[in-house]
Amino acid sequence: MLHGGDIYTDGILKGKNLLDYSSNINPLGTPKGFSENIGEALKNVVRYPDIKYRELIDNIKNYIGVKNVEYILGNGAAEIIDLSISCFQSIIIVVPSFVEYEINAKKWNCKIEYSYLSRNMEFDYNDIMNKLKNVEAVIIGNPNNPNGGTIDKDKFQEILDFCEENEKTIIIDEAFIEFVGEKEHGFAKYTNKYKCLFIIRAITKFFAMPGVRFGYGITKNSKLATSIKEKQNPWNINCFAELAVKYSFSDERYIKKSLLWIEEERRFLFHELCEVNCFEMVFPTNANFILCKLKDIDEDELYAFCLKKEIIIRKASNFRGLNKGFIRLAIKDRESNERLIKVLKSYS
Amino acid sequence: MLHGGDIYTDGILKGKNLLDYSSNINPLGTPKGFSENIGEALKNVVRYPDIKYRELIDNIKNYIGVKNVEYILGNGAAEIIDLSISCFQSIIIVVPSFVEYEINAKKWNCKIEYSYLSRNMEFDYNDIMNKLKNVEAVIIGNPNNPNGGTIDKDKFQEILDFCEENEKTIIIDEAFIEFVGEKEHGFAKYTNKYKCLFIIRAITKFFAMPGVRFGYGITKNSKLATSIKEKQNPWNINCFAELAVKYSFSDERYIKKSLLWIEEERRFLFHELCEVNCFEMVFPTNANFILCKLKDIDEDELYAFCLKKEIIIRKASNFRGLNKGFIRLAIKDRESNERLIKVLKSYS
Repeated sequence: MLHGGDIYTDGILKGKNLLDYSSNINPLGTPKGFSENIGEALKNVVRYPDIKYRELIDNIKNYIGVKNVEYILGNGAAEIIDLSISCFQSIIIVVPSFVEYEINAKKWNCKIEYSYLSRNMEFDYNDIMNKLKNVEAVIIGNPNNPNGGTIDKDKFQEILDFCEENEKTIIIDEAFIEFVGEKEHGFAKYTNKYKCLFIIRAITKFFAMPGVRFGYGITKNSKLATSIKEKQNPWNINCFAELAVKYSFSDERYIKKSLLWIEEERRFLFHELCEVNCFEMVFPTNANFILCKLKDIDEDELYAFCLKKEIIIRKASNFRGLNKGFIRLAIKDRESNERLIKVLKSYS
Repeated sequence: MLHGGDIYTDGILKGKNLLDYSSNINPLGTPKGFSENIGEALKNVVRYPDIKYRELIDNIKNYIGVKNVEYILGNGAAEIIDLSISCFQSIIIVVPSFVEYEINAKKWNCKIEYSYLSRNMEFDYNDIMNKLKNVEAVIIGNPNNPNGGTIDKDKFQEILDFCEENEKTIIIDEAFIEFVGEKEHGFAKYTNKYKCLFIIRAITKFFAMPGVRFGYGITKNSKLATSIKEKQNPWNINCFAELAVKYSFSDERYIKKSLLWIEEERRFLFHELCEVNCFEMVFPTNANFILCKLKDIDEDELYAFCLKKEIIIRKASNFRGLNKGFIRLAIKDRESNERLIKVLKSYS
């Protein structure tokens, strides 16, 4: 299993009350405005979308609050990650991280340098800085998947300045940034000032819409933006994604409610997981998932144990730098989290 | 304007009862089952689609009726056209045809040979055959856009046999094939026998769903299929496209009704257009659009004239091999067609 959450394989979905802790989606579901106004999209289905997606881009601009930069639209963040990496001949991938970075880099014959997180799952800023001299770009998650750690802006400043001066590119994957809660953690606003930045965002996780397929890139580097756009096909965004953006980004009530939920449940689940016997370490997270180091059990055993109790956990050994001694858990609603904790604590 | 139907530019859409004859979409609208069952997709939005799209592929297989071949799914036919062309270093493009073939081939540094239609807009099978010796592949529309001509299977047999024996690939874009009406015109069934074939289909035109974004490729050449799939991103198909396929391909009533409409209106509009004074030639078509050669007027003048009457026509000069002396018209419902004819006949 390459990705988390392949609940379709072997039909394990069928007829079971399965709790999927391998997939990190906001449990509050999609913002109501989306389904309530689905008729708008149904009306638009019969015609081609605006090939320039003017209204869609305006809605994103209003949400992000940065005007004079380029917005690049993708059929999921997957397309944006892939095409941004394709523009470089060499790149640092900060790992462990989302496996697609490496798959994409290899596909485009992009030379890879790896910068490993420390044993405490913290970014090694010095290592990134040293390796930057030999490459054109770096890709880093903020917060990073699978551990949920965010970039320390003070420690990152030197890297930012170096890249800006030396025409290197920093790709920051912020697919989970909304879960962090405080706006100061994200780098979208920095694109106004730093041409070296390329920020990737999506509606997938926070707005609970993986089925819609929509992600986007933000950069002031118009040469990079043009390189990516030239590789894209026309009409790559469907009309339901246009609707999703329209009714999600403006739904302040949904956003506020989601932030209240994640702050409370992140604290709750983290503390409860710290008391689980088969965990040697639970890593602090700013995202909606938690990485755990196992004790006296491997991922396969714990996966099988949980599956029997109708819970799916994310094995983490296919993340570069991790091994069978790690798993990742989503943060869900209180009822589900309690069910998860009960199951995990029952293992001894 | 690169593509037809950019009705968004300059806001010409706003507040007008505009008839868009530049866009070739089935005027019957989307099959009812799609909107009636939209709730299924809304339920699925919150989770990732099956990364292998098993049910979706089964639905396509049942519709096409060919089992032991590969189905490659695309975010619109645009993705399939692009990625299939990317697999070759040299290709014949039969022109005039959909402008994306050339754009894609150039993007991938694929060497292009052009095979021009005859003055009567017929395929030059001998020319294709001769040029095939120097290239790896050929791409051809069936029916071809902008003229609507279909491949003559008898005359094409030699090309088919030659490609099969010499490991050349024939990409046939059948985005409009359903409008032709008789099943014998399509090459999908031939993929069972001929490994050299790569057929491109879509739900865009016949099922009136350009907003959903879904196309697919069919081939027995598993090496080619793998090359394309390796270039694709995971989860490239949205859950609304899954729903669209489910409720469109099985809607026999809609399909039958659409065929009755197109056969009648194609005949009607063709004969009426033959009596328009400013047309020197109206080309016979098997599709849902008609190419017309202008007399004593150019595309810009006729476009401006029609726009004043709130009708948009497709200028055809950006099709390689055509010039400002051609336009393309969609075939729509009787009421619209009558309005179009009245406007065209009023020009003198």
